[in-house]
Amino acid sequence: MNLIILSDKDRIDEDHFIVSDNRAEHIRSILKLSEGDPVEIGILNGGQGKGKITEIDSEKVCLMTKKMEEVDFDDLTPQIDLICALPRPQTLKKVLLTCGMMAVRRLYLIRANRVEKSYYHSPLLESENYTPFLIEGLSQGKHTRLPEVTIHQRFKPFFEDSLAAIEKNDKSETLRIFPDPQSNQTINRFYDGGAARILLAIGPEGGWVPFETEMMQAHGFQMCTLGRWILRVEHAVTAALSQIEMIHVGNE
Amino acid sequence: MNLIILSDKDRIDEDHFIVSDNRAEHIRSILKLSEGDPVEIGILNGGQGKGKITEIDSEKVCLMTKKMEEVDFDDLTPQIDLICALPRPQTLKKVLLTCGMMAVRRLYLIRANRVEKSYYHSPLLESENYTPFLIEGLSQGKHTRLPEVTIHQRFKPFFEDSLAAIEKNDKSETLRIFPDPQSNQTINRFYDGGAARILLAIGPEGGWVPFETEMMQAHGFQMCTLGRWILRVEHAVTAALSQIEMIHVGNE
Repeated sequence: MNLIILSDKDRIDEDHFIVSDNRAEHIRSILKLSEGDPVEIGILNGGQGKGKITEIDSEKVCLMTKKMEEVDFDDLTPQIDLICALPRPQTLKKVLLTCGMMAVRRLYLIRANRVEKSYYHSPLLESENYTPFLIEGLSQGKHTRLPEVTIHQRFKPFFEDSLAAIEKNDKSETLRIFPDPQSNQTINRFYDGGAARILLAIGPEGGWVPFETEMMQAHGFQMCTLGRWILRVEHAVTAALSQIEMIHVGNE
Repeated sequence: MNLIILSDKDRIDEDHFIVSDNRAEHIRSILKLSEGDPVEIGILNGGQGKGKITEIDSEKVCLMTKKMEEVDFDDLTPQIDLICALPRPQTLKKVLLTCGMMAVRRLYLIRANRVEKSYYHSPLLESENYTPFLIEGLSQGKHTRLPEVTIHQRFKPFFEDSLAAIEKNDKSETLRIFPDPQSNQTINRFYDGGAARILLAIGPEGGWVPFETEMMQAHGFQMCTLGRWILRVEHAVTAALSQIEMIHVGNE
């Protein structure tokens, strides 16, 4: 935990919080902090800064937060929305963590031909079950915006209707890409650090089927490569986000 | 498994092999292949190509390999040697898989201030225990060169003696880099796709201490950033290798 993430559930009054779960344990056993010590705090979907420990015992940790630095999430460019063919639950946990860690704005979990129907019955698709993985990612990556997750049951209606409806208020220039082994065009052929938004689609284990790649291309998605090796879904997500990040930061 | 990796242990004669472990199970249950079907084969540290199933039952799969395409591993540029502060065993498994998957040539596991001594007692540091994770990575990434792993007990002697001794026969131009949160220089500031070899050093959870970064800099390592977020060790490995891969492939 590089940031202790606090939310309204932990709040006592405007700037006092109490935690008693793994965050308290982390403060006690890993950071080994005492009363009066400062600690790095992030408010879920809010600011971040230094907090102070006002009380600590084996049950709980009380924290006071003041002068949090507000973050304008609109400045968090490029705004990355990740479309991911719903992976099996163990992989989804890793993808959720990475989305939190690497500041993905939205995660669209969609159906694809090679997605097993049974994955849609996983309890992990409940908000209360997947949110902890997102928060663990925020805490690791050191920022506070919780990614928005939506779950879509069908492939074609997602691209034909849902995506357009969700995005109708996004006026900024959007780059749409999807990695596929057929391509030899690296992401830096499409993205020079300029686009304000990126829609990135990551396929299922085994890849997209031709109908799917054609549908995406018809909706303005360009096929790209992540490199010479065949990656697992969780690695493909990290690889694509890291490549985008290098282009963005390297061109600032 | 995108490639069934075969080794001398599986060999019956020059071009016949028998497997009875998870590879046989994969051929039966996932690929659902029958006698006479072709299957993608890689010979450990050797060629790759199409094999044929000559016999299959619930116990074993017999394979015939012919006309394997030889791979010249010297062409696998950039040759990436990864120095990694020894992580806890669960993380090491992920790093090993990634090294196999993304064609790392050598993995040096080294001591650092923030490496726990107990990690050196893990049974995972035995070749017979770590090799399966490397092979799983090869099988995923679709190539056949087994990364060489060496384990080093001390930090300073590694940089002062061991590294020079191991590398004395490597004459080609080598880029030496290590990611650190202090830097804002992305890898593409140092690497344009040209260097034939890259030595990449990934620190422990919590990062390198100043003595370590100074020692590496004294040995020609340049500090770089992987981006704005604090990554876990396994993600830092994937991120750095992916960024290098994009620069290399994108500039071919």
